[in-house]
Amino acid sequence: MQGHEIKVTFQPSGRSVYVLPGTVLLEAAGRAGVILQTPCGGKGTCGKCRVRLMDAPLKPSPASVGTLSPEQVEQGYRLACCTPVDAPMVVEVPPESTFESQQQILTDDSGTEVEISPLVHKRCFELPEPSCEDPRADLVRLQEVLGDIDVSPELMRQLPAFLRTNEWKGMAVLSNNHLVALEPGDTTGDGYGVAVDLGSTTVVGKLFDLVSGRECGVASEINPQVAFGDDVISRIMHVRENEDGLTALQSAAVECLNTIVQKLVAQADIRTDEVYEIVLAGNSTMQQILCGYDPSALGEVPFVQAFEEAQILAASDLGLDANPAAEVYVFPQIGSFVGGDTVAGIVAARLDRWNEPVLFVDIGTNGEIVLANGDQLLATSTAAGPAFEGARIRQGMRATAGAIEKVLIRDNVAVNVIGDVAPAGLCGTALIDAVADLLRADIIDETGRILPVEELPEGVPEALQARLITEGNETRFVLASTDEAAGDEAICLWQKDVRELQLAAGAVRAGIQIMLRRVGVEPDAIHRVLLAGAFGNFIRRSNARRIGLLPQISCDRIRFIGNAASLGAKLVLLSDRERAYAAQLQEQTEHIDLSLDPEFQMEFGMAMIFPSSDIDDLKFCHKR
Amino acid sequence: MQGHEIKVTFQPSGRSVYVLPGTVLLEAAGRAGVILQTPCGGKGTCGKCRVRLMDAPLKPSPASVGTLSPEQVEQGYRLACCTPVDAPMVVEVPPESTFESQQQILTDDSGTEVEISPLVHKRCFELPEPSCEDPRADLVRLQEVLGDIDVSPELMRQLPAFLRTNEWKGMAVLSNNHLVALEPGDTTGDGYGVAVDLGSTTVVGKLFDLVSGRECGVASEINPQVAFGDDVISRIMHVRENEDGLTALQSAAVECLNTIVQKLVAQADIRTDEVYEIVLAGNSTMQQILCGYDPSALGEVPFVQAFEEAQILAASDLGLDANPAAEVYVFPQIGSFVGGDTVAGIVAARLDRWNEPVLFVDIGTNGEIVLANGDQLLATSTAAGPAFEGARIRQGMRATAGAIEKVLIRDNVAVNVIGDVAPAGLCGTALIDAVADLLRADIIDETGRILPVEELPEGVPEALQARLITEGNETRFVLASTDEAAGDEAICLWQKDVRELQLAAGAVRAGIQIMLRRVGVEPDAIHRVLLAGAFGNFIRRSNARRIGLLPQISCDRIRFIGNAASLGAKLVLLSDRERAYAAQLQEQTEHIDLSLDPEFQMEFGMAMIFPSSDIDDLKFCHKR
Repeated sequence: MQGHEIKVTFQPSGRSVYVLPGTVLLEAAGRAGVILQTPCGGKGTCGKCRVRLMDAPLKPSPASVGTLSPEQVEQGYRLACCTPVDAPMVVEVPPESTFESQQQILTDDSGTEVEISPLVHKRCFELPEPSCEDPRADLVRLQEVLGDIDVSPELMRQLPAFLRTNEWKGMAVLSNNHLVALEPGDTTGDGYGVAVDLGSTTVVGKLFDLVSGRECGVASEINPQVAFGDDVISRIMHVRENEDGLTALQSAAVECLNTIVQKLVAQADIRTDEVYEIVLAGNSTMQQILCGYDPSALGEVPFVQAFEEAQILAASDLGLDANPAAEVYVFPQIGSFVGGDTVAGIVAARLDRWNEPVLFVDIGTNGEIVLANGDQLLATSTAAGPAFEGARIRQGMRATAGAIEKVLIRDNVAVNVIGDVAPAGLCGTALIDAVADLLRADIIDETGRILPVEELPEGVPEALQARLITEGNETRFVLASTDEAAGDEAICLWQKDVRELQLAAGAVRAGIQIMLRRVGVEPDAIHRVLLAGAFGNFIRRSNARRIGLLPQISCDRIRFIGNAASLGAKLVLLSDRERAYAAQLQEQTEHIDLSLDPEFQMEFGMAMIFPSSDIDDLKFCHKR
Repeated sequence: MQGHEIKVTFQPSGRSVYVLPGTVLLEAAGRAGVILQTPCGGKGTCGKCRVRLMDAPLKPSPASVGTLSPEQVEQGYRLACCTPVDAPMVVEVPPESTFESQQQILTDDSGTEVEISPLVHKRCFELPEPSCEDPRADLVRLQEVLGDIDVSPELMRQLPAFLRTNEWKGMAVLSNNHLVALEPGDTTGDGYGVAVDLGSTTVVGKLFDLVSGRECGVASEINPQVAFGDDVISRIMHVRENEDGLTALQSAAVECLNTIVQKLVAQADIRTDEVYEIVLAGNSTMQQILCGYDPSALGEVPFVQAFEEAQILAASDLGLDANPAAEVYVFPQIGSFVGGDTVAGIVAARLDRWNEPVLFVDIGTNGEIVLANGDQLLATSTAAGPAFEGARIRQGMRATAGAIEKVLIRDNVAVNVIGDVAPAGLCGTALIDAVADLLRADIIDETGRILPVEELPEGVPEALQARLITEGNETRFVLASTDEAAGDEAICLWQKDVRELQLAAGAVRAGIQIMLRRVGVEPDAIHRVLLAGAFGNFIRRSNARRIGLLPQISCDRIRFIGNAASLGAKLVLLSDRERAYAAQLQEQTEHIDLSLDPEFQMEFGMAMIFPSSDIDDLKFCHKR
C-alpha cells in the first residue's frame, strides 16, 4: 500500500509526508505541517505559495506556473496550489512563502500585514544623573524617559540600587506599560516568549524570539494529566472527588510546561529568565485547571466556565520557569466546550475576514465548529465522542506505531500502517476510510449496516466478499488477516465500530446543519471548510465527506490549516494587535448550545443515516 | 507655677489642659487635641465652633455669643473663638463642632463638605443562578451586577466555589474597581481601615469604620527603629553600612504597625481581616524604609527620593496584619525632607483653599515649611536640628516626666514640670520660654549672649540677677536650684544652649524669609501661621515669635492645628476625593532646596541674631 503513495520532502525543515498521486503540493505541505501563504485561496493568482522543486520537470503545466517569471520557472519555482504530486519529490520552501516562519512581518491569509509588536518589549534608557539642581525622584526620572509606566513595589525595591550601580542606564523590559524587569547593559534582542498548545493529550510549546519573531525551538510532551483520566470529564471528576485533586492536576500541568520550557531554552541556548512571556491556548478545562480555577462546574449541567476574557497571571505565581516577572496569557473562552484553543484557531484563520461563509472545524473528542458568515460568528461543540481517537472502537488504538492509519478499498483492500510494522489495530482516520469505501462498495448501507454476503448487491468484487464474516445478526469486515496482523487476531471493522462512527459523525454533521440553518446558509454556499487540529490534518477529505462528517462540497473547498491553535498562540505572543483581535473574536462569537436547540435531536437522528451518495461518486464510479 | 494656669477640661473626651488666663477656648481646645471647626477663621461670625460651658457665667460677653440664639446662650453655649478662659472650666464639645469626629459628613475649614467614600467599599450582590438557557461564565455573571470590575487570579480561584456554596449571593469588597475579597452573608458595615502617622519616634494608628467614618480606636507605640538611631540620618547610615540593614529596619516598622493593629482590633473587638485598608503618612525616609525602597540616596547630596506619587502596596506583601487583600497607601512625597507627613498635613489644612497667604509649619528635628499664596505652594525643609527635642542641650531631655516644659520669668522664675515631680532637665518648649523671657528681661542680648551681672542694664530684678553664674567668659542662668532639682545639680540655661537654639530657630526663620521673598509676600501679610505636629501644639506662640522662630505677626493669627498628618491620613482613608486631593497638592507644590538659594547663607546668618523687639513687647512692658 505504501507503494501507492508518493513521498514528498520539504526543505529546510526536512519534514516528509506520503500523499496519493494527484494531491496538490499545497495540501501535501499542509499535512507536513508546512503552512504556505494562500491569500488568493489557492486559485493560482497571487503567486504567494511558490516553492522550488529540486528536480523540476522540464515542462511544467501552465497552471502550476501562474504568476511566475520565465526565470523563476527555469529555476524550478512552481505554485504549490496548482502543482499535483506525480512523483517523489524534494521541495524547497522559501521563507517568504510560509505563513509561520517569516522575519519581521507576518502576512495573514487576507493579505494584511501583521507587525511584530509583542506586549513585552525592551527599551534602552539613559537617565541624567541627579544633581543638587535636579534632585527629582528616581521614578520620576525614569518615567520622563520611558513615559508614564507602572512600576510595582517589587521593582521599586530594585530601582535605586540598579540606577546607581549601572551609571543610570540599562534596559527596561516592559509589558504594555508595566515595567517587568531591569537589566544592565544593552540586552536588545535577548527577549523570548513561549506559545503553548495545551492539549489534553499532548502539550506543544514553541519558543520565539520576541524581536525578530523567529521560531527558535519546538518541544512537546504527553500531558501528564492523562494519569488522572484520558478525557476532560474524568479529570473534572477527579477534581470533584479529591480534596487536593485540583492542586494535583495543576501541578502536573505546570511540571509538564516546565519540562517543555527547559527543553526549549536548551535548544536555543538561552537562560530561563530570558523568557518574558508565555501564551497558552487549551480547552476550557485545561485552561481553568492550569489557572487553578475549579473546573467542577464544567462537568455538569448547565456547564458553566469561570471566565470568558483572557486571564493574565504571573508566571512566578504559577511556578512556571521563566523570568520572575513574566506574564502568562491564557486565551479567552467562548463556552464550556469551546475554549481558548478554538479562539486561538479562529485568530489564526482570520475567521471574520472572509467575504463568504466559512466553516472552521476542529475534530477531537469534541468537535468544535465555528461558522463565519461575514461578521457573524457562531460557535458550538458537539460531543463527537472518542471514536475519532480510536477509543470505543473494538480494535481501535491511537495513531501510533502499529495503527492502520489509512485504508483503501477497491477490488481488494490496501492499508497503510504507521511505523512500517505489522498492524495491531486501527485509528480514527482508517475507520473513516474503511467506512467510506465500504459505503462506496455498497457493503455498508445507508443505515450503517454491514451487509452479509447474501444481501450484497451485484458487482461487489469477490476479494471483498471474502472478507465478510457474519456471526448471528452481525457482520464484520476483515481489514488485515490473522497472517497480516501483529497479534493472533485478524483486524476487523465491526458493526459496533460503524455505530460509534455514526454517532460521532452524526453529532458533528447535525451541529453544522443547525449552525447553517441559524444563519440561513445552504451547505452549497460554504466557501471553505477549514480543518484544524492534528486529526483534521490527516483525514481524507472525500472520505470524511462520504460518511457525512463534512458537508457535500467540492474537496478543493476543504482545507487543512494545521495546528491553528498553536499558530494563534504564536500570533498573540508576537503582537498586541493579535491579542486585541482575540478579544474581539471572543466577544463577537455567539455560543450555541446544541442541546437547547429543539431541532437538534431530530437533526442528530437524521445525521445518523449516511449520505446516500457523494458529489464525487460519479467520478469515482467512472474511475472504477 | 501651676497656680498661674487655669485648668480646662473638654467633654466627652475628658482631655484637660492648663492655659494662661485670657487664652481663648479655641486655642485651649487645640492644645488638648480637640480641633474645632473654624470656617470663618475665628472671627466669631460662622458660629461653627460653639461649645457649652458646664458652669456658664450668668452674663456672657457679647463677642463670645456671636451668632447664637438667646436660648443657646441660656443653655451655656458660647463661641470658642471668642471666649477667654478666666476660671477653671469644664467644656462640652458638641460632635458637630469638631473637625475630626463627625459622622457621615466631614466639613473642612473652608466649609466644603467631604463625603465619606473610601476607596474600599462593599457591595451586596445576588446573581441569577446559571441554567442551560443562561450558562454565562461566573465572572461575566458577577460583572453584570457589579460592573466591569477587575478580579485577580487569586480571587478567581475562590469565585466558583464561593458562588456555589453561598447560593450565588454575598458581599464583594471592592477597592476602586478591584475585587479584594468575597464574604458570605451581609457584612455591610463591617469594614475598617487604619490611618497611621508613621513618626520616626512615635507611631500612632487610628482605626476607622469605613462606612460611618467613626473613629473606633487609637493606639501608639514607640518606633522600634530608634534602636538603630534616633534620627533618620543615623538610620539611613545603618542601611548603608549593613547588608541586611534595610530588612531589619523594615521589619521593625512592620512589627510596630502590627502591634498597633492588634491593639486597635482588640479595642474595637473586630477581626484582623476586617481591616481592608491602611493609610500611612511619614517622612520620606520612614516611608521608603517601610516600602522596602532603599533610602540610601536620601542620606547624601543631592538627596534623592525613590518616588513622588503615592505608592500602593499589598498588606500581605509587607507582612502587615490585615485582610489578606488589604491595600496599603503610602502618601506622596514632595522632596527628600518634605515627605508624606507634610503632604498629609497640608491636605488636612486645605492649604490651597485660603484666599490670603498662609504658612504651614511643622517643627521637629527638621522644620518643614509650606507657604501657600493662593494656588501657589512652596515647600522646604530646614535642618532645625535637635534642639527643639531637647537634644544637644546640656541639660536637655525629651518632654517626659521630670522635664521643665514651661518657664515664666518676671520678677522671679516660675517653672512647670511634667508629671508634678522635681525637675530633672528641660525640654524644647521650656528652652524657648526661657530664652524669650530672658530676652525680654534684657539678660540675653540680641546676639544671644547671656550677660554677666556686671553688664546688665538697670532695672533687672534682683531675684533674676541672683540666678546668673559666670565662669570665665560664659554665664549661665539657673532655672531650678540644687534644692529644687531632682539631682545634685542645679538646672541651668547654658550659653551653649542659647547658641543651639539660635541655630535651630535661625534655620527655620531663614527658610520662611526666603519662601516669602520668592512669592513676594511681606511677613505682615501672612494671614495665618498653622502650627502642626506635637511640638507645635505646645510651644507658646509669643515666645516662639520673640526668639524669631515665627514671624512678627499677631498671636491670634498663629494657630495650632494639632496632628495634621494624622488627620490627613484619616481623610485619605475615608474619601477617594481626598486621595485625589493629596495627589493634586503634591503635584502643585514646588520644592525649594534652601541650600541652593544664594541668599540662604546670608539670611541664615542674619536670622541667628534675635529680633531686637517683639510686636507685643510694648504691652508686655506696660503690663510689667
